[in-house]
Amino acid sequence: MRTLSVDLDERSYPIHIGSGLLSDQERITSCLDNRRAVLITDDTVATHYLQPLAKNWGIPSADQLVLPAGETNKNLATLSSIFDFLLEKKCDRKTILIALGGGVVGDMVGFAAACYQRGIEFIQVPTTLLAQVDSSVGGKTGINHPAGKNMIGAFHQPKAVFIDTDTLTTLPPREISAGLAEVIKYGLISDAELLAWLEDNLERLQGLEADALAHAIERSCATKAAVVSSDETEQGRRAILNLGHTFGHAVETATGYQSWLHGEAVGLGMRMALNLSATVHALPADQIKRVNNLLDRAGLPARLPPASSPDELLKLIYADKKTDAGTLTFITLDTIGNAVINRDITDEQVLQVIRQFL
Amino acid sequence: MRTLSVDLDERSYPIHIGSGLLSDQERITSCLDNRRAVLITDDTVATHYLQPLAKNWGIPSADQLVLPAGETNKNLATLSSIFDFLLEKKCDRKTILIALGGGVVGDMVGFAAACYQRGIEFIQVPTTLLAQVDSSVGGKTGINHPAGKNMIGAFHQPKAVFIDTDTLTTLPPREISAGLAEVIKYGLISDAELLAWLEDNLERLQGLEADALAHAIERSCATKAAVVSSDETEQGRRAILNLGHTFGHAVETATGYQSWLHGEAVGLGMRMALNLSATVHALPADQIKRVNNLLDRAGLPARLPPASSPDELLKLIYADKKTDAGTLTFITLDTIGNAVINRDITDEQVLQVIRQFL
Repeated sequence: MRTLSVDLDERSYPIHIGSGLLSDQERITSCLDNRRAVLITDDTVATHYLQPLAKNWGIPSADQLVLPAGETNKNLATLSSIFDFLLEKKCDRKTILIALGGGVVGDMVGFAAACYQRGIEFIQVPTTLLAQVDSSVGGKTGINHPAGKNMIGAFHQPKAVFIDTDTLTTLPPREISAGLAEVIKYGLISDAELLAWLEDNLERLQGLEADALAHAIERSCATKAAVVSSDETEQGRRAILNLGHTFGHAVETATGYQSWLHGEAVGLGMRMALNLSATVHALPADQIKRVNNLLDRAGLPARLPPASSPDELLKLIYADKKTDAGTLTFITLDTIGNAVINRDITDEQVLQVIRQFL
Repeated sequence: MRTLSVDLDERSYPIHIGSGLLSDQERITSCLDNRRAVLITDDTVATHYLQPLAKNWGIPSADQLVLPAGETNKNLATLSSIFDFLLEKKCDRKTILIALGGGVVGDMVGFAAACYQRGIEFIQVPTTLLAQVDSSVGGKTGINHPAGKNMIGAFHQPKAVFIDTDTLTTLPPREISAGLAEVIKYGLISDAELLAWLEDNLERLQGLEADALAHAIERSCATKAAVVSSDETEQGRRAILNLGHTFGHAVETATGYQSWLHGEAVGLGMRMALNLSATVHALPADQIKRVNNLLDRAGLPARLPPASSPDELLKLIYADKKTDAGTLTFITLDTIGNAVINRDITDEQVLQVIRQFL
């Protein structure tokens, strides 16, 4: 078992990473410290992990809530059902929420914790690779709105994160690919060594070798933690974590959050960001090719959805919250391992990149 | 014009208090600093102040939103309509919300600002005495749930507060009384001098004399600011601000937030807290009588609603978020000007007080 600390002053918290963590009674007992815990998950994850986890961690069935799975349910109605449940069960300000599941569950439960009685504590137990390397760190919580992803939310740090790599064994291969997109992202934005390691070890990750997974997850979380610690509420440098996300969010919104996984959209978004980097920083073609090869091996998409409209995508990019007072912000690379924040990209440059991926 | 500073490190902000502030273009211009502002109010306040304020402060009609007035509309549906508006108008993270109105508007707009794109800035322009002396300071924002008041919310500090005492001229006398309840509260919990001043000057406040109002508002805000600065997220001492609120919230919930104003419920709640103080601290009868006289002169209720059930009220008190892991917390006085936090009040003591006000 490895433990990584996310350093945010009084909001600092540990991330525990390892195989078999969900059976570790002692660690959770010391974390809960005799307080009441409510376990919230979705109906997909529930079939695999709800009963064993609730038993190991001693959570009675009256304190378990199962939400409908899927990004389309990450909305105000589901959030409201969490509040209804907590109030019906008379949960008070000392109650701790446990979010068991992927990014959707983590984002919603974290946001519910941020708002319930103006803020209670929560523990994240991410069960997808993407959630393990992405939403475990940073405290971003929230829900979607028909007009855009994560438009309503809060910064709320968890009390602790438990990452059991065994949970990845029940994950569909497409979701592993989606998680790999974010791992690759950390290599691209600030860890060229991780990128080289991924080129050598991608198949070990796809084969779910516990050691390799723990290494990739720890390295990814550490990179994210370093960036987040320096800029908790995304005023500046933290924006580099959005490499591929500006394009990616537009694709997700255009497809109604249904046909594409978030990591898949980010995977394509990173390819688009690389082409944009070729324009604005003359990023060499061989570097772009190297990354595209890795994304191909990870099984990530290389084309926009059929019948995409460049103008519509541009409009969605403007509607995204990463526009700052009407100015688009794009993350690009001047070389592998170094991200740059760009605020002077023209509409024509964006449209040109979109057309390259039609 | 007086300016008070609420000292919360990087979240510090000024409260401007005076007559004619809503016409002061220079002050708001410097506060907005060329950023886009969206003005949100309710349909009662709109008839008096929306047009003049929007004109003076230069806010186009496309950036004005009018909500339905009243505590019954302080809910998830109205909050959701604010998000819809902001997204439809393509407001970004630099947009500043202006909350023009009473506590309901302030709480909801503040909470919308706390959650919109994970947090944007807002300016409070409270137009009721209660909002001026209460919600201006402390950063508590939120909405009600059928199961209880302010159950969903966030701590989110405003960028600035503009209190124009002239707005009180259009306020019904009942609302002035409700605001006086909170002013009296500050005297009771930590400012015996203010309480004595109120005994001498209550009629000047009821007559809306600008100087007297500015003095009472400034003194109230200063007391609240001192308490809040020492305990921003209500872990400890801040709880004293809840004098009268534990009983008061139960009354408001029992009556569906419709027939009683918040300040009226707090006024009665303070009388109840004084009787409880007689039991637990032997607070002298003459002190209780002195306060009851002042509350009478302020026009605040002295009896529970007809047909109140003590058992039901006790249940509502337990459902309130001020119960801490199943323990009731009550604020009492050991003398006028000094509040005590009590966590060992028995159900029987609470029921006994309730019965005294049937």
